Amino acid sequence: MDKVYNFSAGPGMLPDEVKKDAQRDFLSYNNTGMSVMEMSHRSKPYEEIHFEVISLFRYLMNIGDEYHVLLIQGGATQQFDAVPLNLFVKGKADYIVTGNFASKAAKEALKYGDVKIVASSKDKNFTYIPDVDKIEFSKDADYTHITTNNTIFGVRFRKLPSPPSPLVADVSSNILGEVMDINKFGLIYAGAQKNIGPSGLTVVIVRKDLINNPMSICPTMLKYSEASEADSLHNTPSTYSIYMAMLTLRWLKKLGGVAEMQKFNDYKAGLLYDFIDNSSFYKNPVEVPYRSIMNVPFVSPNAELDALFCKEATASGLISLKGHRLVGGMRASIYNAMPLEGVKKLIEFMKKFESENK
Amino acid sequence: MDKVYNFSAGPGMLPDEVKKDAQRDFLSYNNTGMSVMEMSHRSKPYEEIHFEVISLFRYLMNIGDEYHVLLIQGGATQQFDAVPLNLFVKGKADYIVTGNFASKAAKEALKYGDVKIVASSKDKNFTYIPDVDKIEFSKDADYTHITTNNTIFGVRFRKLPSPPSPLVADVSSNILGEVMDINKFGLIYAGAQKNIGPSGLTVVIVRKDLINNPMSICPTMLKYSEASEADSLHNTPSTYSIYMAMLTLRWLKKLGGVAEMQKFNDYKAGLLYDFIDNSSFYKNPVEVPYRSIMNVPFVSPNAELDALFCKEATASGLISLKGHRLVGGMRASIYNAMPLEGVKKLIEFMKKFESENK
Repeated sequence: MDKVYNFSAGPGMLPDEVKKDAQRDFLSYNNTGMSVMEMSHRSKPYEEIHFEVISLFRYLMNIGDEYHVLLIQGGATQQFDAVPLNLFVKGKADYIVTGNFASKAAKEALKYGDVKIVASSKDKNFTYIPDVDKIEFSKDADYTHITTNNTIFGVRFRKLPSPPSPLVADVSSNILGEVMDINKFGLIYAGAQKNIGPSGLTVVIVRKDLINNPMSICPTMLKYSEASEADSLHNTPSTYSIYMAMLTLRWLKKLGGVAEMQKFNDYKAGLLYDFIDNSSFYKNPVEVPYRSIMNVPFVSPNAELDALFCKEATASGLISLKGHRLVGGMRASIYNAMPLEGVKKLIEFMKKFESENK
Repeated sequence: MDKVYNFSAGPGMLPDEVKKDAQRDFLSYNNTGMSVMEMSHRSKPYEEIHFEVISLFRYLMNIGDEYHVLLIQGGATQQFDAVPLNLFVKGKADYIVTGNFASKAAKEALKYGDVKIVASSKDKNFTYIPDVDKIEFSKDADYTHITTNNTIFGVRFRKLPSPPSPLVADVSSNILGEVMDINKFGLIYAGAQKNIGPSGLTVVIVRKDLINNPMSICPTMLKYSEASEADSLHNTPSTYSIYMAMLTLRWLKKLGGVAEMQKFNDYKAGLLYDFIDNSSFYKNPVEVPYRSIMNVPFVSPNAELDALFCKEATASGLISLKGHRLVGGMRASIYNAMPLEGVKKLIEFMKKFESENK
């Protein structure tokens, strides 16, 4: 297959330029005679990569010295446990449940302390975000947890809540795709495989004052204090994933950074939502103000047509469009690396499919 | 630099053939139009890779159906916690401490239960392995933990202990480099970055009957039962590391498997030890029967010469030879992918250095 547009929710597309650079340097990086994946994590050439990634995060997200940027393993799911294991002091947390992963995160925390679901959008199958100004937060919680963008249902927070406890967020599916004010958060975490690079890397950005009291039962590899003291080199990190993240972050910086990328993402998502809203064939169930610009779920008139859509789209080089089993239908994940051309091809295909199956 | 021989303790060298195949297919794997690292972990082409890796482990290590082969993240260090969190039922374990990582593993387990150090070689700075037939094991331990090969001190078990409880082993630095009888173990684990592929992947091979009673405080991502139920696809795995492992395991299979590789490794290590033993300039401190065939530490007459050795070796394309800070001197890690040529070049260099600095 010549040119494929991959709408996978993650791992997803990487920029062409990033892939070509990585391929060119695969056997010998910077004249070292070695592939990056063969380098000791204690070697100078690897350490340069490692610290450049941390610097690029600081630059692109405007992260001050009061925060650590940690490069760890295990995926965002591992953070569902790491967050309470590191942040529970009183052993209480508030969770806002706006989707499947938010719900899982709350469930994990329950193993280690008291969890209060202060708001949920489950009543309407996660198609909106609860009004953050009407939430009654606990006064004595250690933190308040949200998921900024829901990958499965395609909803996102437009306005952040302002709880009395530090705001903790799973930002896996919109980090670097939208401007975030890190100062509004105590901690954010993200699996890399959507907007950062390949899987195997998880980024945790955490306020330094929050990590000094991990629970005694916290596994050492899950302790933020261990990671920060060793600059995330406390054991062998996922070095090649970190290298690919460096190339991707450099690419983003060259394109103008996150604010420019958000404009581009708003435009891409706008094209797709406009087309869906103007169609009587396709539907997106999410309330307009809360629609994700990263993940766009939609359905055709019935499940049979949905299946046919995915089959024919795949044959046309538009792949991984099948929706999550909890939602059905289709889902187009259009992260930073999805070119405009990919969204336009998708819309063209949707038009054609509609005219053939109306 | 043209041709480099990398003696790093890990991440270490990868076979040339493996790297070239990966480079060739970097932009489009198997005519999919995608890099492996862009593929959804739920996609068919990725799943084929994933399950081939599990099959190759079963084939190469002769692993029966009574064991799970799990592909997870976090490194061997994460297993220091995962092992007790999954295997503690009575909350007691025996540990044999034969090096730095064995000692760390014991320390982690102490957080979750009773740990008895039943034997240690710390008295002679880990330069030997205690006589396994003279160890008094606990009768009621949940497991007995060993480190089969010590990466830092260059010692290894020649004979395995036979404790009454299941034997658990960190095999990170000699898995696939030596034949192991999996049936003698309840569980083995290994970080990939020595003999399996790049970092980011940890392999756990565990007897199915041992994983059904994780401690209630065990983080979900550390639960073997969760990983096994989802065929290690419970969250997004480190997909590219797993792909590189597939290429490396295929290469090992083609070369004749682990028994053939061990012959080659015995030969490579034998050349180096023979040279050191016949020299009055270099010394290896390890008692002969316990010498590792993977990691060969050695010293010159003094620390100044050691530093000069590493500097000049690096300039000659023999890199990462500096010993671990706990041992000093030099260390040559000669894993499966280190060609005979590399060991010969190292010996030539050692001769030359000796003649110039005697």
